[in-house]
Amino acid sequence: MKKSIGIGLTGLGVVGRQVVSTLLEKADLLSEQVGCPLVLRQLKLIEPDIAQARKMGIDPKLITTDDDQFLANPEIDIVVETIGGEEPALSYLERALAGGRHVVTANKEVIAKHGVRLLALAEQHGVGLHFEASVGGGIPLIAPFQDDLIANQIKGIYAIINGTTNYILTRMAKGGVDFAPALSKAQELGYAEANPVNDIEGIDASYKLAILASLAFRSQVQPQDVYREGISRLDSRDFQYAHELGFAIKLLAIAKQSDESIEVRVHPVFIPQDALLAKVEGVYNAVLVEGDLVGQVLFFGEGAGALPTSSAVIADIVSAARDVGLGVSSRARWSLEPGKRVKPMSELETRYYLRLNVTDQAGVLAQISKILGDNSISISSVIQKWADSATQTAEIVIMTHPAKEAAMQKALTQLEHLAVIKEISNFVRVEV
Amino acid sequence: MKKSIGIGLTGLGVVGRQVVSTLLEKADLLSEQVGCPLVLRQLKLIEPDIAQARKMGIDPKLITTDDDQFLANPEIDIVVETIGGEEPALSYLERALAGGRHVVTANKEVIAKHGVRLLALAEQHGVGLHFEASVGGGIPLIAPFQDDLIANQIKGIYAIINGTTNYILTRMAKGGVDFAPALSKAQELGYAEANPVNDIEGIDASYKLAILASLAFRSQVQPQDVYREGISRLDSRDFQYAHELGFAIKLLAIAKQSDESIEVRVHPVFIPQDALLAKVEGVYNAVLVEGDLVGQVLFFGEGAGALPTSSAVIADIVSAARDVGLGVSSRARWSLEPGKRVKPMSELETRYYLRLNVTDQAGVLAQISKILGDNSISISSVIQKWADSATQTAEIVIMTHPAKEAAMQKALTQLEHLAVIKEISNFVRVEV
Repeated sequence: MKKSIGIGLTGLGVVGRQVVSTLLEKADLLSEQVGCPLVLRQLKLIEPDIAQARKMGIDPKLITTDDDQFLANPEIDIVVETIGGEEPALSYLERALAGGRHVVTANKEVIAKHGVRLLALAEQHGVGLHFEASVGGGIPLIAPFQDDLIANQIKGIYAIINGTTNYILTRMAKGGVDFAPALSKAQELGYAEANPVNDIEGIDASYKLAILASLAFRSQVQPQDVYREGISRLDSRDFQYAHELGFAIKLLAIAKQSDESIEVRVHPVFIPQDALLAKVEGVYNAVLVEGDLVGQVLFFGEGAGALPTSSAVIADIVSAARDVGLGVSSRARWSLEPGKRVKPMSELETRYYLRLNVTDQAGVLAQISKILGDNSISISSVIQKWADSATQTAEIVIMTHPAKEAAMQKALTQLEHLAVIKEISNFVRVEV
Repeated sequence: MKKSIGIGLTGLGVVGRQVVSTLLEKADLLSEQVGCPLVLRQLKLIEPDIAQARKMGIDPKLITTDDDQFLANPEIDIVVETIGGEEPALSYLERALAGGRHVVTANKEVIAKHGVRLLALAEQHGVGLHFEASVGGGIPLIAPFQDDLIANQIKGIYAIINGTTNYILTRMAKGGVDFAPALSKAQELGYAEANPVNDIEGIDASYKLAILASLAFRSQVQPQDVYREGISRLDSRDFQYAHELGFAIKLLAIAKQSDESIEVRVHPVFIPQDALLAKVEGVYNAVLVEGDLVGQVLFFGEGAGALPTSSAVIADIVSAARDVGLGVSSRARWSLEPGKRVKPMSELETRYYLRLNVTDQAGVLAQISKILGDNSISISSVIQKWADSATQTAEIVIMTHPAKEAAMQKALTQLEHLAVIKEISNFVRVEV
């Protein structure tokens, strides 16, 4: 048994700072859990993190700016990366693994894009790559697929994994406000960044879904495999109609697996109001997993923030440290199953919600119904919502029975060319 | 690395049978996850399990009735116990651990009563004791405390961990029926046993809470430490009033920890209708955990049944097998922190719901208010629900502000002696 286990950390943003604080504050507990002390041996930092470290009272002797020296430091058993972003984080992780260091990272982008390769690299060098913090803050979402649900064939994942968009959608649903003011409020509260594109366009969620789907399906799912639509085209009226129809609107990250193919997509969906996911409000995250043995299990919690994320990072450090102490490589095994094709969106079959702005005149519905019917799309309900006498337009809301996405896209193109249709205001898929 | 890992199984009830089936059906997947095949080497059975094994087509050469031979079989690395109940399961587990076998068990009673001692025994003999299946079927509820949330000081656990009672309460809430017919329906559907006392009196939940609290608080919490009230005194009217007041009624298993003491109790509670736990319906289980870093996390799923439970048992077998393969003892470390006193119920402080059957005359409320006031209990709302002219009685529903349990118990005794009070129909604690 080793006398102590050395930690090297790179990146001192909010998560990195919290990890350092927790390592120091909870040293006794962690030592008890590992079997020997965890010692922070070195920090590889650049400005302004160096100034930050000084402010925190970190011993300046522990700080280096020299990558080579840091990555070759024989006293470091575990490299913790909390820089974020693709580079230079990716290079650090590669070099750390190749140098026989166990690695803990919170970096969703690197894992989503390069995880499969990095896991192979870790295995090759007999060390572990831990990334629980890359998805869903402190909610256990990686370990379940590597350990707890290992006996299951995972059939589906339905996830609210972006707190920013869930906050915005909750505000739109509860406050009856439109997208822009809801986004402003999120920015004001620090839930959304000044440039919110990564969140609101579903890019962040697509990274996380790629990670979950890769693990769950033992496949290499890349972020670019994920079909992606953001939330900016949703309108307060969509929420009002959804509510009337018994639905909530959520940005879901969905992954499903059949015998032949997998499907991975992030887009707004209508889900039944009484579904558990519909109750997940504000910045909270929740992931529903469906397995052949376990049935449905759901994991819920804060999906971001320094404290929850540090909870996952420290758990990973403890896990890696136990392996170091026992002198073994990572216990989690990673093996790719024969690749399945990613099902194109055109093959999706689901129900749809359509909101159309039309000329307020007789026979409009007949023309719309004909186009839908010609494309084998049958209507489950139609509501004419209001007529505006000034513009002589009306709003029509249509819910369809299950139909093929390809047929729906064709129908939408044809509807666009219909003279009586002023605008296809929105269409949203339904998930039940 | 071993060429294969040997499994011995004892007990062939619904869970045992599913474990055997899954081990055989998913042999390839499991072998891939462990690094070598998992081989079912022997089953120690008694009638009628032997007949069952024959029906399943299990090779008769694998079956023994000889305890000593089974426990001494050098080909068995992992003993899986799915007998249930205290004895003879406890003796098997003790002998298996003492003989250097890793152990996987689904036995909540043995773990709740003897877990701390068995964990020490396992550590002493360099093997692992795995019991994920003892609480909450396939929902990961043990691993989070041993691994994922390890960096947290756990402040509270709020759990719906008995599916039978949650089914009954859901029926009472939705169907407006009383306890007896709801129980009958649960029995008819196989959710409740012919003798339902273990479920409806909260005994099952108290076992599970003792396990969770022991792990979460690193304490030795025994089932008899858990304050316990069942659900049989709830009436359809309690659900009606709860609904009107904005609450749901659930049987919660609650564990809290302060710096000085822990509190563990199982009883019906009023919880706000919009709380996530209020949405957990039917036989589903859900456990809300509050940690200092992670905030609130919730785990939800099917809490019983052969398939979900086998999901947890197999995950434990894989975990033990990875340890066997790596030649290490269990990675989970178990250490008791200095014992904290268990806070007596009398020190509890919470809000209360009171339903009283009173004589329908002037001045009744004044007498009731006086007794409550004399005991420093202040009323937050009073509703006189109905008057029955035939019996000249009325029903009064009172919600209090937070008050001490000791004061409330004293007040209840005094109220009982009040001539105008026909009956204290119910009182239920509120948890927010």
